[in-house]
Amino acid sequence: MAIGSGVGIVESRLARFATPLRLRSGATLPGFELAYETYGELNAAKSNAILVCHALSGHHHVAGHYAEAPQNVGWWDNIVGPGRPLDTNRFFVVGVNNLGGCHGSTGPAVVDPATGQAWGSKFPIVTVEDWVTAQAGLADHLGIAQWAATIGGSLGGMQAMQWTIQLPARVRHALVIAAAPKLSAENIAFNEVARQAILSDPDYALGKRPERGLRLARMLGHITYLSDDQMADKFGRRLRHGEYRYGFGVEFEIESYLRYQGDKFAGWFDADTYLRMTKALDYYDPAAACGDDLAAALAPAQAQFLVVSFSTDWRFSPARSREIVRALVKNGQDVAYAEIESQHGHDSFLMEDAHYHGIVAAYLKNVPT
Amino acid sequence: MAIGSGVGIVESRLARFATPLRLRSGATLPGFELAYETYGELNAAKSNAILVCHALSGHHHVAGHYAEAPQNVGWWDNIVGPGRPLDTNRFFVVGVNNLGGCHGSTGPAVVDPATGQAWGSKFPIVTVEDWVTAQAGLADHLGIAQWAATIGGSLGGMQAMQWTIQLPARVRHALVIAAAPKLSAENIAFNEVARQAILSDPDYALGKRPERGLRLARMLGHITYLSDDQMADKFGRRLRHGEYRYGFGVEFEIESYLRYQGDKFAGWFDADTYLRMTKALDYYDPAAACGDDLAAALAPAQAQFLVVSFSTDWRFSPARSREIVRALVKNGQDVAYAEIESQHGHDSFLMEDAHYHGIVAAYLKNVPT
Repeated sequence: MAIGSGVGIVESRLARFATPLRLRSGATLPGFELAYETYGELNAAKSNAILVCHALSGHHHVAGHYAEAPQNVGWWDNIVGPGRPLDTNRFFVVGVNNLGGCHGSTGPAVVDPATGQAWGSKFPIVTVEDWVTAQAGLADHLGIAQWAATIGGSLGGMQAMQWTIQLPARVRHALVIAAAPKLSAENIAFNEVARQAILSDPDYALGKRPERGLRLARMLGHITYLSDDQMADKFGRRLRHGEYRYGFGVEFEIESYLRYQGDKFAGWFDADTYLRMTKALDYYDPAAACGDDLAAALAPAQAQFLVVSFSTDWRFSPARSREIVRALVKNGQDVAYAEIESQHGHDSFLMEDAHYHGIVAAYLKNVPT
Repeated sequence: MAIGSGVGIVESRLARFATPLRLRSGATLPGFELAYETYGELNAAKSNAILVCHALSGHHHVAGHYAEAPQNVGWWDNIVGPGRPLDTNRFFVVGVNNLGGCHGSTGPAVVDPATGQAWGSKFPIVTVEDWVTAQAGLADHLGIAQWAATIGGSLGGMQAMQWTIQLPARVRHALVIAAAPKLSAENIAFNEVARQAILSDPDYALGKRPERGLRLARMLGHITYLSDDQMADKFGRRLRHGEYRYGFGVEFEIESYLRYQGDKFAGWFDADTYLRMTKALDYYDPAAACGDDLAAALAPAQAQFLVVSFSTDWRFSPARSREIVRALVKNGQDVAYAEIESQHGHDSFLMEDAHYHGIVAAYLKNVPT
């Protein structure tokens, strides 16, 4: 299916919320804005809405393209559209940029009304729980009392799950993809190196874009998004110049790939947003409040679940997804689980794979609207 | 067995080589010096010598301690000494700092006689093959025509193996521990992020110690040295302050550990050495000259082999060690292989483990001197 041929031209919208929002950290935002997009039509009963939650560097531009920028196709366009797994002939799909993001929602790059200057490093730390609260404001704004489904991959999957715990009456189905119920020490360790790369970049302290730090953070991120096997297949030890040059320029193709990805990211992503997204990941641990009992944490959920993992994902391996499944099974809750054979590591959730998309499509076909 | 109680007081020595050394890169060193230490006595037949090759940040101070610095115990003291697996009652054990190192051998931190200034970033790239050539010079200097054994872990294991390929008549046994026949794309990717951390540190271009870059490189390195399981056991999600602080200071104990390790390393290790050690790892690929046929590359070896891997090592997993074993078996060469159950990831080769040390001890007991 051709990318961009689905929902067609879309528009980014902004919802304003005047009520102060108290965050988990104890800080209060005096009000906030959320950038969002919608695809498909909300039905009269307002019962066919799906919320798509984004991951670390994602945003609300999930599908379609902008009239003025036809090349700027949404990050999950391959799964959203007429006849696609998130079928816009049946569902009203909502994409939202999270609080603290850098794509139009209130965050470090936006002006703090109290000072007249961009929030920057003063923007408070936000959590998955805060995002669900803010997303609930957007649901109210759109008149959606209950989502037919929440869905997301990676950090987005954590949000899809957190909805079922935090606002159980407001979500009928949760599709939790390539996620984990909390980060491991190793996951936190990778985030910490990425943060230190940014925080220790001298430009960061000077209030300038810490491009060196962002570049390193993204290079490191890409190692954890791909699988070892995939890197071997895609790059192996292939040389850029056919022979060793014995210097510090690019020698191996994998070096070229990482530098390219790092440079590209450093040119546009907001460092303060990156720092906050990694902290939201680190903090997320719904079982902690229940004596580390994930089943107890999930007990309030009224939703049915589809949990999906990918065989070569070593950031959040299938074993991590099965922790969620086991907890739901223990509670007698309704859960389907699919472990997809894929070469694409953690990034598999973004890829178009017939088996994976077929399972999501089949699951959603059975979700009444 | 108590650390430091083995070989006792040791002395660092320096061997000088006046003959120019042409390196793989095409550069020529006009002469060079190697820092080394020895433990035990060379027998009259000079047939009981074992060469210990070091890994990325290692050096020639393998065992014992200096009279003036009793706390400075060698990095592999637990395996070298009277009655220890590398039994100095039987063997004459030699530790050497590799060319390009920063512990006394000719390298970036040493004065280039041609300029009267430290080599610094002008020091040429060195390879595993160059190290074996230089180590052979040290063997000549000590009157050792043939090593009873070469041994090393990680990058040291690559050197132990390369001896058998490059100078097959000069080594009777090779103990190749926690090694791989070449780096994977993922291995190279981690090295590249570490190098970019150093090279993009503004202090590096200014000729100052790039402490930020070294710190990040070491933090990242530590993630790859430990196993996920070990990190979970040792740190898990344990908090420094018992609760979230919602800031960028240390929250999780794993963050504290990584920062400590990074800071410590940044204070003393030479950045130009670090850059070169990672390049030597990247370049090593003995099969490349034989059409990627590792068995063909190993065919000249006359040595017998002990190959050891560790179950939780994901930097060089057991599968990578088995590639070496399979190639040797294919050639009908003499190889013993042990896969050790260990929680310590790649670092296992440095640890004192009864099973692991027992296997090395048993193997070396059968090596005639």
